[in-house]
Amino acid sequence: MNPDPDYSAAYVVLRTDAGEGTAASEGHGFVFTIGRGNDVTAAAIRSLRPHVVGRPAPLTATELAALHRELTHDSQLRWLGPEKGVMHMAAGAVVNAAWDLAARQAGKPLWQFLAEMPPEELVELVDFRYLSDALTPEEALAILRAAEPGRAERAALLRERGYPAYTTSPGWLGYSDEKMIKLAQEAVSDGFGQIKLKVGSDLDEDLRRMRLAREAVGPDVRIAVDANQRWDVAEAVRWMSALAPYDPHWIEEPTSPDDVLAHAAIRAGQPVKVATGEHVANRVVFKQLLQAEAVDFVQIDAARVAGVNENLTILLLAAKYGLPVCPHAGGVGLCELVQHLAMFDYVAVSGSWEDRVIEYVDHLHEHFADPVVVESGRYRAPTAPGFSARMYPESIAAYRYPDGPEWRTRLAQPVSAQPVPASSVPAQPVSAPSAPAQPQEDHQ
Amino acid sequence: MNPDPDYSAAYVVLRTDAGEGTAASEGHGFVFTIGRGNDVTAAAIRSLRPHVVGRPAPLTATELAALHRELTHDSQLRWLGPEKGVMHMAAGAVVNAAWDLAARQAGKPLWQFLAEMPPEELVELVDFRYLSDALTPEEALAILRAAEPGRAERAALLRERGYPAYTTSPGWLGYSDEKMIKLAQEAVSDGFGQIKLKVGSDLDEDLRRMRLAREAVGPDVRIAVDANQRWDVAEAVRWMSALAPYDPHWIEEPTSPDDVLAHAAIRAGQPVKVATGEHVANRVVFKQLLQAEAVDFVQIDAARVAGVNENLTILLLAAKYGLPVCPHAGGVGLCELVQHLAMFDYVAVSGSWEDRVIEYVDHLHEHFADPVVVESGRYRAPTAPGFSARMYPESIAAYRYPDGPEWRTRLAQPVSAQPVPASSVPAQPVSAPSAPAQPQEDHQ
Repeated sequence: MNPDPDYSAAYVVLRTDAGEGTAASEGHGFVFTIGRGNDVTAAAIRSLRPHVVGRPAPLTATELAALHRELTHDSQLRWLGPEKGVMHMAAGAVVNAAWDLAARQAGKPLWQFLAEMPPEELVELVDFRYLSDALTPEEALAILRAAEPGRAERAALLRERGYPAYTTSPGWLGYSDEKMIKLAQEAVSDGFGQIKLKVGSDLDEDLRRMRLAREAVGPDVRIAVDANQRWDVAEAVRWMSALAPYDPHWIEEPTSPDDVLAHAAIRAGQPVKVATGEHVANRVVFKQLLQAEAVDFVQIDAARVAGVNENLTILLLAAKYGLPVCPHAGGVGLCELVQHLAMFDYVAVSGSWEDRVIEYVDHLHEHFADPVVVESGRYRAPTAPGFSARMYPESIAAYRYPDGPEWRTRLAQPVSAQPVPASSVPAQPVSAPSAPAQPQEDHQ
Repeated sequence: MNPDPDYSAAYVVLRTDAGEGTAASEGHGFVFTIGRGNDVTAAAIRSLRPHVVGRPAPLTATELAALHRELTHDSQLRWLGPEKGVMHMAAGAVVNAAWDLAARQAGKPLWQFLAEMPPEELVELVDFRYLSDALTPEEALAILRAAEPGRAERAALLRERGYPAYTTSPGWLGYSDEKMIKLAQEAVSDGFGQIKLKVGSDLDEDLRRMRLAREAVGPDVRIAVDANQRWDVAEAVRWMSALAPYDPHWIEEPTSPDDVLAHAAIRAGQPVKVATGEHVANRVVFKQLLQAEAVDFVQIDAARVAGVNENLTILLLAAKYGLPVCPHAGGVGLCELVQHLAMFDYVAVSGSWEDRVIEYVDHLHEHFADPVVVESGRYRAPTAPGFSARMYPESIAAYRYPDGPEWRTRLAQPVSAQPVPASSVPAQPVSAPSAPAQPQEDHQ
């Protein structure tokens, strides 16, 4: 469904005069896109300027709650969603930049900054509108309080062992059998307990690849499969029933991310567990996926919903329903962001990393000042202050559209050789670095 | 929920060299917004230019189907939805402009242009992806074929009598009791069989207004009520149970438009029928509202989903489930557009106008070259070719942001008196006229 990714991001920088000139005076955030849409997200972020520019930097839970509510409830902009798509992703970038700033001012990595907040403050961050049939403030508080006594012990364990990861590297549809097998075996020897394969293009082909992958990794390594929204209900049931003998760990995005009832029917209609979330628009749709028993794994994304506040809400919903959260990552900087959310979940919300894994894709980390560190199949807990969201100024300068040297070179080529530009965003205040696409068929 | 509307539109003009210089050489479409978001929708429309500019004008069902699919399945832009929010609304504006053009080239009003297409061509226009658990191509064809024999008779009846309308004019929350009563009585004497009141701010107040309105119009005029997404499930059930003795015809938008399960719970939990749709993102969510028996009335909107093709899809879904479609209108030009869809539904899809009404709000029609005509509580069938989407060039010139004289005057005022600008769109190819807000509290 995403055959032509040109990994891009609309990039937000919030600056404050507290500690001006130091790293702590800036908060960075972004919306990851896979190309042309970058212009549109940049316009959406620009439309939020009046809510942010010239205002005091939000540093406390109360202030961060107010910012989140103001951005998602601007009555004129809300018309464009409500709470979904471009406008919502833009709100998320700004909210995440504010959290980066607040955590930096506090001198803590975001996961720790969140995990040290009192339960009452965390509850204050949640917008409970439309949730009361599934989660009340009292229930949220009870969940957070139940996790409070074990926080310190789990934070220590997390720092010692890191958080479990899985890798999508062997799984792209375009790879030869030999390459897929080699990458699967490498993943296992690198310490990953789970890999993921793309499926959905051709069932016979998927059966063959699944068999080869299972032979390559043995019975104990989990193999998740990902259909990237390709199917209707009946097709998903047929396909996954056929793949089931190879013991897929989950089927990810079997159908439209809006289709709660279809996910429930697919889950009921075949034996493989169901995962979704990277394209789920907001907390209201996540709530229904849980209410309808439509999923087994909740896949949050850092740059789709309205930032840390809404992801905290989704973590609480998942905890209420007892389901594990396994973040979607990859793209531009998603690994960097989601690791904080999963680690915070472990320390202060669900209190568990059983059945939980963060996706890991090994690319574009070289552009980030605080890149993820994945060793022996686990994400090491970040120690640098902030949300790990900051790209190197050199990367932004090199890939900024349309004036960065990488783009100037491309745009100087004859028209027939030019890709459709991924962005045409003026430089300030939102710059839009666009990194070159990796040689892969499909976005995770 | 929409306390501060500044009625605006991102406006699209498609031009072709067939019949250049005549009215038939242009197709017009727009995304209605309530203010600041106009910039963002304009950017989204601009991002679709590569799919349209320089291509042959789509004039046949096959070509219009291809355009719709290309716009909604552009893999990079799809990332920003998928199929929801800003990007989807932008696709709708372009698709609608193409239909305006095609109907004008055919010399027919859109409702007639559609209603004269063979069932096979209409089915070709539908994107059935994600729908097969509710509606197959064969079922759609059967619905359309069943309506085919009566087309001519119903078209003649429609031209003779017009299509039933209802009015929201008495219903705004800011009106005094006297004004509300006077407008309600005027609506009845003007021939409307249904009016609508806004509710949801204060229950005692709503009970009083509902009682006064019922006394004013008598027991036989339907009074719909509209909560504009204000409630959670329990609140909606409590509120509507209290209002039920005054016999509200429907409760519109009781909660989040994404919340299929909440609508189902509200419908099951109190006696008043449920209506929603003006903010429903796409056909997949409409499908679920029908599958879950969550609504009694399907309220399509012309400028929220991906244009005529997706609305045809929703009409077919509603026909399959036997539910009446009652379009949302008002805003900028929505009455002009939706009348065609409802009339086409009557002639060639559902074949009925029982329990069906088109919303009518009497404002901003003076900017449209082919404005709606509502007489004795009914929309007269349009006779001019096209989709009635065209604004007068003088209106566009006067209200275009930021260079139209109306905006120049406003922007020359001292900063404290300036509204946040509703748009900052360069003039070509997308212009963004913004009409002044009406003195009403809330958008319908």
